[in-house]
Amino acid sequence: MENQRPLILITNDDGVTAPGIRALIDVMSQIGEVVVVAPDKPQSAMGHAITINSTLYINKISKEGAEILEYSCSGTPVDCVKIAVNEVLKRKPDLCVSGINHGSNSSINVIYSGTMSAAVEAGIEGIPAIGFSLLDYNWDANFEEAKPFIKKITLEVLEKKLPKDVVLNVNLPKLKTNEIKGIKICRQAKAMWQERFDKRTSPFGKEYYWLTGEFVNEDKGEDTDEWALANGYISIVPVQFDLTAHHATQQLNTWDWNE
Amino acid sequence: MENQRPLILITNDDGVTAPGIRALIDVMSQIGEVVVVAPDKPQSAMGHAITINSTLYINKISKEGAEILEYSCSGTPVDCVKIAVNEVLKRKPDLCVSGINHGSNSSINVIYSGTMSAAVEAGIEGIPAIGFSLLDYNWDANFEEAKPFIKKITLEVLEKKLPKDVVLNVNLPKLKTNEIKGIKICRQAKAMWQERFDKRTSPFGKEYYWLTGEFVNEDKGEDTDEWALANGYISIVPVQFDLTAHHATQQLNTWDWNE
Repeated sequence: MENQRPLILITNDDGVTAPGIRALIDVMSQIGEVVVVAPDKPQSAMGHAITINSTLYINKISKEGAEILEYSCSGTPVDCVKIAVNEVLKRKPDLCVSGINHGSNSSINVIYSGTMSAAVEAGIEGIPAIGFSLLDYNWDANFEEAKPFIKKITLEVLEKKLPKDVVLNVNLPKLKTNEIKGIKICRQAKAMWQERFDKRTSPFGKEYYWLTGEFVNEDKGEDTDEWALANGYISIVPVQFDLTAHHATQQLNTWDWNE
Repeated sequence: MENQRPLILITNDDGVTAPGIRALIDVMSQIGEVVVVAPDKPQSAMGHAITINSTLYINKISKEGAEILEYSCSGTPVDCVKIAVNEVLKRKPDLCVSGINHGSNSSINVIYSGTMSAAVEAGIEGIPAIGFSLLDYNWDANFEEAKPFIKKITLEVLEKKLPKDVVLNVNLPKLKTNEIKGIKICRQAKAMWQERFDKRTSPFGKEYYWLTGEFVNEDKGEDTDEWALANGYISIVPVQFDLTAHHATQQLNTWDWNE
């Protein structure tokens, strides 16, 4: 008797109509049974936001009899995972993949990223999960070159099983398949955004701001995701959701908390 | 010559009118020069969301000549920190405090919490930061009992200096001052929300959902924040924003990534 095909939940943060999620659906439908539950509008930079002060809607958008079930959801990427697991899927998925994000989620971007927060949410719920991002912000980015690597990484995860409470943050450089040098397991580079607020005046005389900024990486380590990507590699950072800074516990215990 | 009083930035996620932030302003104005930049509406469960697809407004809400400068901001808690640092404050603050949150941010709640994401954002920007939460969701929660401990913790942080790239997640039990047994440095309990979607039908016949759920903690460790809070202690979890699961690197490096 043949094994059941793996059940794969797909979501993203650019919205269900984004070319990036279409590319991910293409790859995953070669691997398993696919169900899509993704935001009905762009939800970039939503981090781990969830919707608790308003209601949520889901709409089936795939046609009757379609091979792949697709739903749009009015909520955030994390809402999508929660509602998919609880209201859409008939069993716990074998894998959750998020993306392909249009743009980088390397380094500190992991914290702001809706793509990665969806993967982290799946991880919290005990579902193996991977977030994929391509270093190209364009809506018409070319996802074809990334597909062979995304397939390989996914198959590896399904075969080998991820370490407990770890999800993968995969970033792919904007290169042709044969220009990509390989895959590297990395640590998150210690980098940040140097904000600049673009201050403007509305037609009605009110001042407002656009949040802009420049990504600053002063981490020179060659074991970081930034280094890998700058040098033609795909970066994989294992990501955890225990945020405890265990290394700081000892020092903090020497303070006078209870004198 | 006397030292300059520390400059303290205060924000939260319940909004600038919440009683919790008023209590925090009371305590902090005994310690330093206070500037408030907080959301103009509730922003609970916004995680590390930032506003990049729309504009941001800030409004000075303190009266001319008031001792404490207060601003409301149309964005998320993380936006508040970014705009405070870049557009409101004349120098980098010596401390950022967020809260007092109406309700717990212990355990996995740290990931969904706007209160803690504001503190984490300050940490990313190199500002010592603490998030405070009281285990009482009521709008008219009694914050008086917590005040002596919040003052003590803040003074300790200002004196001893936090470890690099670490912010504090402080949760206070809903107890009287003299019932609180003390302060414990803890790790984040491995717990999660067991969701339940409350499905309803609108007056117009459309189905919608409310996200509800039950907090499930199967972590029996006595070194967790959940244990401390359940046993009458204030919990302090040191929180980091390097999400790399360093312990998983070795195992992942044995996989066949580049064969």
